[in-house]
Amino acid sequence: MSDIVTPDLTGKTIAVLGGTGPQGRGLARRFASAGLDVVVGSRSADRAAETAKDLANATGGQVRGLDNAGAAEAGDIVLVVVPWEGHGELVASLAPALAGKVVVDCVNPLGFDKQGAYALQVEEGSATQQAAGLLPESIVVGAFHNVSAALLEDPEVTAIETDVLVLGDDREATDLVQALASAIPGIRGVYGGRIRNAHQVEALTANLISVNRRYKAHAGLRVTDV
Amino acid sequence: MSDIVTPDLTGKTIAVLGGTGPQGRGLARRFASAGLDVVVGSRSADRAAETAKDLANATGGQVRGLDNAGAAEAGDIVLVVVPWEGHGELVASLAPALAGKVVVDCVNPLGFDKQGAYALQVEEGSATQQAAGLLPESIVVGAFHNVSAALLEDPEVTAIETDVLVLGDDREATDLVQALASAIPGIRGVYGGRIRNAHQVEALTANLISVNRRYKAHAGLRVTDV
Repeated sequence: MSDIVTPDLTGKTIAVLGGTGPQGRGLARRFASAGLDVVVGSRSADRAAETAKDLANATGGQVRGLDNAGAAEAGDIVLVVVPWEGHGELVASLAPALAGKVVVDCVNPLGFDKQGAYALQVEEGSATQQAAGLLPESIVVGAFHNVSAALLEDPEVTAIETDVLVLGDDREATDLVQALASAIPGIRGVYGGRIRNAHQVEALTANLISVNRRYKAHAGLRVTDV
Repeated sequence: MSDIVTPDLTGKTIAVLGGTGPQGRGLARRFASAGLDVVVGSRSADRAAETAKDLANATGGQVRGLDNAGAAEAGDIVLVVVPWEGHGELVASLAPALAGKVVVDCVNPLGFDKQGAYALQVEEGSATQQAAGLLPESIVVGAFHNVSAALLEDPEVTAIETDVLVLGDDREATDLVQALASAIPGIRGVYGGRIRNAHQVEALTANLISVNRRYKAHAGLRVTDV
């Protein structure tokens, strides 16, 4: 990668809203393992505290648990890793706490039926664009859409062979989130375009689910020639 | 890849509609180099014949040029590599010639402005689904959406480091198109889901264009763990 990005993450607190679900918990685990200060957010502060304790024990890292509002307050970089249902409502309710912060939307608007997963139509274009519309005082970036929760959560997986496409309209923010992604062994954060092109990256998880079924894999993506 | 697919392409003629544009010409060149029987189609039979002659000379392969209707008749597997504008009209006009055949839609419905490329909304969901709707007697597969024309056309590039996601609802057809993709050195054809999930693969080229601008690359994609 000719354009190596290494902003300093020292002293930054990473909050993971929806951090008790598989994807959020997996990301929180990896950030804690990387030595970052992590706050797990959840609807229930008790469940968040429980997950935080488990992750701190598992990783030897620094992990606290708070309700989503508390985690949004505590984080310098705030990841949104909640189910698509309720995404808009949660994000809107936290707008004051998220003002001035980098908010990383990691949500895949997908439907499921007996033929597998498929992309849902999103009125705003994508979950990332919905968040950006609801958070005019925040800097919204899309990332971490295509990383396997199973791999993130597996303590025997030391490196995750995938790139994370980072989408955003603010260069400083995308550089920061690329550095955050690259803090996870095996992962590279790669700039993937403006947020108007977030939809297809969010939706691509439906294809990876098809790949996983066909090949019995935990598929990821590498960008070549970068 | 645990599920290696190698249907026999011997004796099959590969037609490339829009084979005088950079993407179509690049694919025709690679198929000819792989020893396949290739027909270049174009609106103008003369231009098709000229391109075919150039490609035959360059590759030592078997390449003919015909107008798009003649190429559609001649091909056993027919690739559609035309601009999005006019895609529906061309496909509909060739429906009788394409009946009973595997049709591979390779079209990216993209718009461009000074901020780069973006995905267009397609009423039918995707170019692939539009083709499938217009060709009820054909077996429509989506593929070759994310392969760099610059790399396909560069005679000094001996292997193209990318995977081709193949989308389709008919296993025999997707297996065949995976084998066709894998005939190009460096490329693997990987099953990528049903055609209802074609949109995001077509649109992802907008992101790769952003990657190319940022990193001065000819980006491709590899699916990991497959």
